[in-house]
Amino acid sequence: MYVFEHKLRVRYAETDQMGYVYYGNYAAYYEVARTEMLRVTGISYKDLEAMGIMMPVTEMHTKYHSPAKYDELITIKVTIKERPSVRIIFNYEIFDESGKLLNTGMTQLVFVDMEKNRPCKPPIIFSNKLDAYYKISE
Amino acid sequence: MYVFEHKLRVRYAETDQMGYVYYGNYAAYYEVARTEMLRVTGISYKDLEAMGIMMPVTEMHTKYHSPAKYDELITIKVTIKERPSVRIIFNYEIFDESGKLLNTGMTQLVFVDMEKNRPCKPPIIFSNKLDAYYKISE
Amino acid sequence: MYVFEHKLRVRYAETDQMGYVYYGNYAAYYEVARTEMLRVTGISYKDLEAMGIMMPVTEMHTKYHSPAKYDELITIKVTIKERPSVRIIFNYEIFDESGKLLNTGMTQLVFVDMEKNRPCKPPIIFSNKLDAYYKISE
Amino acid sequence: MYVFEHKLRVRYAETDQMGYVYYGNYAAYYEVARTEMLRVTGISYKDLEAMGIMMPVTEMHTKYHSPAKYDELITIKVTIKERPSVRIIFNYEIFDESGKLLNTGMTQLVFVDMEKNRPCKPPIIFSNKLDAYYKISE
Repeated sequence: MYVFEHKLRVRYAETDQMGYVYYGNYAAYYEVARTEMLRVTGISYKDLEAMGIMMPVTEMHTKYHSPAKYDELITIKVTIKERPSVRIIFNYEIFDESGKLLNTGMTQLVFVDMEKNRPCKPPIIFSNKLDAYYKISE
Repeated sequence: MYVFEHKLRVRYAETDQMGYVYYGNYAAYYEVARTEMLRVTGISYKDLEAMGIMMPVTEMHTKYHSPAKYDELITIKVTIKERPSVRIIFNYEIFDESGKLLNTGMTQLVFVDMEKNRPCKPPIIFSNKLDAYYKISE
Repeated sequence: MYVFEHKLRVRYAETDQMGYVYYGNYAAYYEVARTEMLRVTGISYKDLEAMGIMMPVTEMHTKYHSPAKYDELITIKVTIKERPSVRIIFNYEIFDESGKLLNTGMTQLVFVDMEKNRPCKPPIIFSNKLDAYYKISE
Repeated sequence: MYVFEHKLRVRYAETDQMGYVYYGNYAAYYEVARTEMLRVTGISYKDLEAMGIMMPVTEMHTKYHSPAKYDELITIKVTIKERPSVRIIFNYEIFDESGKLLNTGMTQLVFVDMEKNRPCKPPIIFSNKLDAYYKISE
């Protein structure tokens, strides 16, 4: 299991007139967190696109336990529970500064060969990088 | 069962560099569609907030079957399958102009008494409005 | 002078915790309005991109006279004062339902040949379409 | 003159199908940068709202010199040239990692007494904090 944490601060732009983060903006928080997770493996998502692989999201679940608010420094904990194949599932937990759980979610992404426009396996260099993390945690 | 359809056109702002609608923007499409659905019942969401009731989203599921693209006129079909109590569940299906299914989703919202900041039943006038639709379809 | 009006309804997603439309979201309103203006000329912006021409924005000015609010049906009036060359300037005025002026703005866009990645003249078919409007108003 | 720099990384959510940052998203970059600038003065924007003062934007100008791209770590340089009165003007310059100028902009904001819903002077504690910076630079 591969676990990673990223912090970010809620922008005014992301709030709505309820005074909370708009429910559609958590998707971008998930994106930022998994992007930073991939970066530390040594292959960034930008690198993957440069290699001709894109990763569209095919499924998302979100539970809104308690609202995130303007200017809060939230922590997004990302977990990959299973070694990715053609699909990769990221799980998310978002906490406020006091450690209170605000939000849980998951996204399923697919590796897509951009030239063929077809699902594909992750590049070996990427799988190897992730494998290193699995060995550590096993 | 109460069914409603709303059309909208994909904005450039909503695309990302994959050339598709960014996966986080479907939440706003769902919002627009359920807002228009509520409006035709005679009690708009704006009216509900003016009555001291807000409806935060507590859960969302989305499946991305095929990407929506810039300038497409998409149809969002909204369904309420069960009479709402403290919670109300909206189901969504999004189609492109050819009738191809692009996206399915659900959102669960809770009626909240803004003064007490607690979940509450929907206002009677609203329940009555919705009941009319259920009677038609039964 | 070519004048066009487009109406749209403010989304909850577009508000912020002040209870107004977030100041960054007017840019998308401008985009929607000029897109619909181009569509009625017979050459949509999507068509232009398909012809290998894109139109990035190079400058924007906005004055926020009075805030747009959730669920308001606003009218965006778009004006092209001068025949476009390599550059095209759109002016905007946004009104609420009572006719009150909420916002004024302008955007300057450049026609760019996507293959050469260089500024270019608008396609003749597009200039001809716009010319028709100038003749009407002269 | 008070100068401040803030770095942030471009999100996928912020790109559009041109492969650039959507032109409307720079407003949020400006917001983040001026928020962090205020924070270091000791009075955050959140504090100001808690004191009953909000700061809506009344004017914005932006020039798009060169596009910001996905995953770039951009630097936003914020400058306040004049001591704020009822109005405060922030100037922005955005640079990419190589130091290339991508974007310049300005926003004018107004201090508003939220209870009276009228423009007001900035709170003394805030003016004093800013004054300190002006003395340093004079």
